[in-house]
Amino acid sequence: MTARTHPFVTVLDITGTFVFAIEGARAAIAGRLDLFGVLVLGFATALGGGIIRDVLIGFTPPSALRDWRYAALALAGGALTFLLRGWIADLPLFAFTVLDAAGLAIFAVAGTELAQDHKIPPFIAPFLGTITAVGGGMVRDVLLTHVPAVLRMDIYASAALAGAVVLVIARQCRLSRGTAAWAGFATCFLLRLVSVALHWHLPV
Amino acid sequence: MTARTHPFVTVLDITGTFVFAIEGARAAIAGRLDLFGVLVLGFATALGGGIIRDVLIGFTPPSALRDWRYAALALAGGALTFLLRGWIADLPLFAFTVLDAAGLAIFAVAGTELAQDHKIPPFIAPFLGTITAVGGGMVRDVLLTHVPAVLRMDIYASAALAGAVVLVIARQCRLSRGTAAWAGFATCFLLRLVSVALHWHLPV
Amino acid sequence: MTARTHPFVTVLDITGTFVFAIEGARAAIAGRLDLFGVLVLGFATALGGGIIRDVLIGFTPPSALRDWRYAALALAGGALTFLLRGWIADLPLFAFTVLDAAGLAIFAVAGTELAQDHKIPPFIAPFLGTITAVGGGMVRDVLLTHVPAVLRMDIYASAALAGAVVLVIARQCRLSRGTAAWAGFATCFLLRLVSVALHWHLPV
Repeated sequence: MTARTHPFVTVLDITGTFVFAIEGARAAIAGRLDLFGVLVLGFATALGGGIIRDVLIGFTPPSALRDWRYAALALAGGALTFLLRGWIADLPLFAFTVLDAAGLAIFAVAGTELAQDHKIPPFIAPFLGTITAVGGGMVRDVLLTHVPAVLRMDIYASAALAGAVVLVIARQCRLSRGTAAWAGFATCFLLRLVSVALHWHLPV
Repeated sequence: MTARTHPFVTVLDITGTFVFAIEGARAAIAGRLDLFGVLVLGFATALGGGIIRDVLIGFTPPSALRDWRYAALALAGGALTFLLRGWIADLPLFAFTVLDAAGLAIFAVAGTELAQDHKIPPFIAPFLGTITAVGGGMVRDVLLTHVPAVLRMDIYASAALAGAVVLVIARQCRLSRGTAAWAGFATCFLLRLVSVALHWHLPV
Repeated sequence: MTARTHPFVTVLDITGTFVFAIEGARAAIAGRLDLFGVLVLGFATALGGGIIRDVLIGFTPPSALRDWRYAALALAGGALTFLLRGWIADLPLFAFTVLDAAGLAIFAVAGTELAQDHKIPPFIAPFLGTITAVGGGMVRDVLLTHVPAVLRMDIYASAALAGAVVLVIARQCRLSRGTAAWAGFATCFLLRLVSVALHWHLPV
């Protein structure tokens, strides 16, 4: 997650961070962690991917630790989930899947762009975009001693990677920065939702 | 852990590092690791929190890898624990709890101060102090494939966080650096010991 | 893994990266991960140790993310393992053990040298060499929720450490860079193979 200028991107970025924090907090509650653990897993899920990306590209302290609003947003998501856990458990799964796909796509796009801005070669930048998108969930799973779901579960990380690759190719083809970002976002978002709807999986 | 000037702080810092190394080594012995594993877990428990903090704030190589005395201290703690494992198992739990609380408090204070020295905003600095204090134990638990105890176990990380927050507030109120550090240390140390004595827990 | 000049070193470096990628991919297949997981574990096993070392010494972005050929090599190893999994499972264990020992030794030597080039003190440099050699395998094991094998399994990390220590001592004794590197390599490689042949273990 990085601060972007277009208002719609900002809305998506905030949405993604908040939804990821809720998902981390829900996993912590399901794992019977205490309030501190719920806040930590919300924080790690929402911001862990961006922190890992920033450490890898040498942009330290990471954005998520420079700007208190990211931490506040992630902690608010975790705290709300803890307080409203009965109510949140009743939300339709469909809403979560759509919001999560939006978060995945915006994180993949933002991470790939930031990597390219830091002179990461085009072949590598999509990996950093994918780490941004799925790294937080992997940290969450490792802390709960689960094998990370993205390593064995349907089209999730691969949707992020596909969106990141589309963005890089679009930039190589001299499309504008904005067009490339939207092409990457749409690829990831739609691929994720279609794969859920049609139960697509990668070979095992 | 960072090199500090006041002799009493140095004593606390050395004590904390050594006690954390012993605890990591004991967990490794309980997990039936070999000598190398015992030394690694002693090292990771004692120095992992400070290393993670230094990487996050961009202070690389981390202090623990710049100054050979930290590594020597952690490895000595691990090796002694391996050699004297029968004797150490008989030490009173009370002594460990007090020394561990002192280590927790000094790491939380030192980590928060270092974060503030590196321009981390006041709202974020306590997180880095808490990571310094509990990060090593989390690495130890993940390597042993346990869910980190701090995420579901009584008042431990939250005592570190409370001490770090008190330090930051004291600094914001223009108290002297030394006074703020002692206020933070006392908050964490006493809160931890009182919570053990009275069996306090966070809500689950 | 780092780019080196001597052709034989380059061959060893490529061999080590490729063999480690295959081993990571095999572990992923045994853990029933999907294609994405196989590629991630191949990548993490081959390049994770070098990435951790580079982040710790402050050399970011890490070599493995600066030069696309490392990633391409690791991904090729993972993809080939996925495609040829029946055939690879039939390879003689002996071949794997020898190639893995060569990879272990070259990574330990390269990591120790790089650490010394970045002003890490001689007492600490061997740890960074050892992390280079075994860090990728530890990441692989943690992602599969296994206690890292190197923490409880025979002479493996300790062979890497021994080779790294020999290198540092040889350099302190003013031997040439090349001689010191070969002494370290031979120590690690032979110690590993002899320990496998003779079933040596560390005390538990």
